[in-house]
Amino acid sequence: MLIVPEREIADLMTRQAAFDAVEKVFAAMATGDAYNFPVVREAIGHVDALYGFKGGFDRAGMTLGLKAGGYWPQNLERHGIINHQSTVFLFDPDTGRVSAMVGGNLLTALRTAAASSVSIKHLARDDAKVIGMIGAGHQATFQLRAALEQRAFEKVIGWNLHPEMLPNIEKVAGEAGLPFEAVELDGMAQADVIISITSSFDAILKADQVSAGCHLACMGTDTKGKQEVEPQLLARASVYTDEVAQSVSIGEAQHAVAEGLISESDVGQIGAVINGTDPGRSSDDQITLFDGTGVGLQDLAVAAAVVELAVEKGIAIEVDF
Amino acid sequence: MLIVPEREIADLMTRQAAFDAVEKVFAAMATGDAYNFPVVREAIGHVDALYGFKGGFDRAGMTLGLKAGGYWPQNLERHGIINHQSTVFLFDPDTGRVSAMVGGNLLTALRTAAASSVSIKHLARDDAKVIGMIGAGHQATFQLRAALEQRAFEKVIGWNLHPEMLPNIEKVAGEAGLPFEAVELDGMAQADVIISITSSFDAILKADQVSAGCHLACMGTDTKGKQEVEPQLLARASVYTDEVAQSVSIGEAQHAVAEGLISESDVGQIGAVINGTDPGRSSDDQITLFDGTGVGLQDLAVAAAVVELAVEKGIAIEVDF
Repeated sequence: MLIVPEREIADLMTRQAAFDAVEKVFAAMATGDAYNFPVVREAIGHVDALYGFKGGFDRAGMTLGLKAGGYWPQNLERHGIINHQSTVFLFDPDTGRVSAMVGGNLLTALRTAAASSVSIKHLARDDAKVIGMIGAGHQATFQLRAALEQRAFEKVIGWNLHPEMLPNIEKVAGEAGLPFEAVELDGMAQADVIISITSSFDAILKADQVSAGCHLACMGTDTKGKQEVEPQLLARASVYTDEVAQSVSIGEAQHAVAEGLISESDVGQIGAVINGTDPGRSSDDQITLFDGTGVGLQDLAVAAAVVELAVEKGIAIEVDF
Repeated sequence: MLIVPEREIADLMTRQAAFDAVEKVFAAMATGDAYNFPVVREAIGHVDALYGFKGGFDRAGMTLGLKAGGYWPQNLERHGIINHQSTVFLFDPDTGRVSAMVGGNLLTALRTAAASSVSIKHLARDDAKVIGMIGAGHQATFQLRAALEQRAFEKVIGWNLHPEMLPNIEKVAGEAGLPFEAVELDGMAQADVIISITSSFDAILKADQVSAGCHLACMGTDTKGKQEVEPQLLARASVYTDEVAQSVSIGEAQHAVAEGLISESDVGQIGAVINGTDPGRSSDDQITLFDGTGVGLQDLAVAAAVVELAVEKGIAIEVDF
């Protein structure tokens, strides 16, 4: 079996490889070639940790396995390591034997960024010029960096509950040679694309703060009770997601569905747009919204890609297991 | 992190170490110090494979992780490897980082054998002389070998649907210097201890084929629909199990509960008997029955034990992950 330690990922994995892997597995999910297993997520009652497993099988990519790990909120303070800790394990679908173990921390950031990028590629207007960021934490920098590769953006605007964090994304804009403007939420009306990536439990963005033709990628809501945008916005928008069952139960769509503003059948699969079986955006005025809930298959897809790259470069550790 | 490959397990792990680990974790489950996560089990739609995860956390033993793997029915014929394939992954409960990876195939056999042995130690009559085996496959040899260490047995009797397999267990009896007798099911009346370890979907053993004072360990039923003994036997017996929720849903007790012969509250935890909070056997005439359904914590416990042994002997592979 092959091992790719966390420390090797940054030099191996590219945004493009992550994008390609995630786009491909979203497409496979929509055809039924790939599916996610039920998620296990446990508050283990020790150092406030959340721990669990996200698994799946992609018959098209022949990728089987799981991401295991979770959130250890005291890690940074007590151990000087990051709070999110995860590891991906791949198995040979033909035999059930473990085939690879891959550090999952950076990969999780990259696959989450790739997901909103895939949605921008397939749902945003081609002439999008202004991208708005809601949220300016560590993960927001990944989302923005990946998003900027999808359109010829000319300006980045941003809002964050704690404005002192905005320099995080201003820096990414600057690296891309783009001006950055801190805005109030009303200022998001100038955005052609908006990415929300927060840990909010209340609607931040109101429906009337979004202009016609905008594409939104709501990436922060992955748990019952979390929320980033007003439910009325989903009623105005054409809503797409990675996995419908998650979208309506733990994703951004949970609130609009609970309030009866939309129903499960109103939520489309991004993979169907990728495959061309769903038309996606049909007019320049349409608002599109991608509810990115995060699925195990994304983790497996990027892990499989990184194993391939590690083998090519000869830096995968081989263990006779 | 540490790696202990499958090939090292046979030389490292002892029946005693497996017994101690399983007894200890059953005890921790009964006090609430250890708990199992929901089981993921998927028919992945490829080469008829069943794949899944059994995880748990034992705060007493500070063991966190999962067993991943399953059943690949075409393995032996197509690849010359065994059909059951599993790997155990341990995590540091303080940080969420992976700490060990251990081959899980032999360990699964040993922990299953240890479970019925633990039940014999704590529930069988001290003067048990005759042990009866229902089932004579590969796993039966593990169950018998471990069971023989728990009492001064004087004879082994056995029944199997395909009698040509009985030499498997006759050989184990012979190694222990004990006579072996093939019997019809009515002959099980002479047994003081009976272990059933089959893949049956119908009751094999009838209630009136068991004598007063017998202890039974039903080890084969781990899925809805499987069954080894007549439900009336559970009504006659004092029933114990590893995990009550599994016992009444996918274990041997599922049928007696479904028929209203016993209720969930009639099923005790073997850990409570180990801890002395449940008296267990209270008379020489009582029939006791252990419904061994198999839990992830058993796998984690034996894996943690084998890692310790591998470190002691200096044969754990260390990878800077």
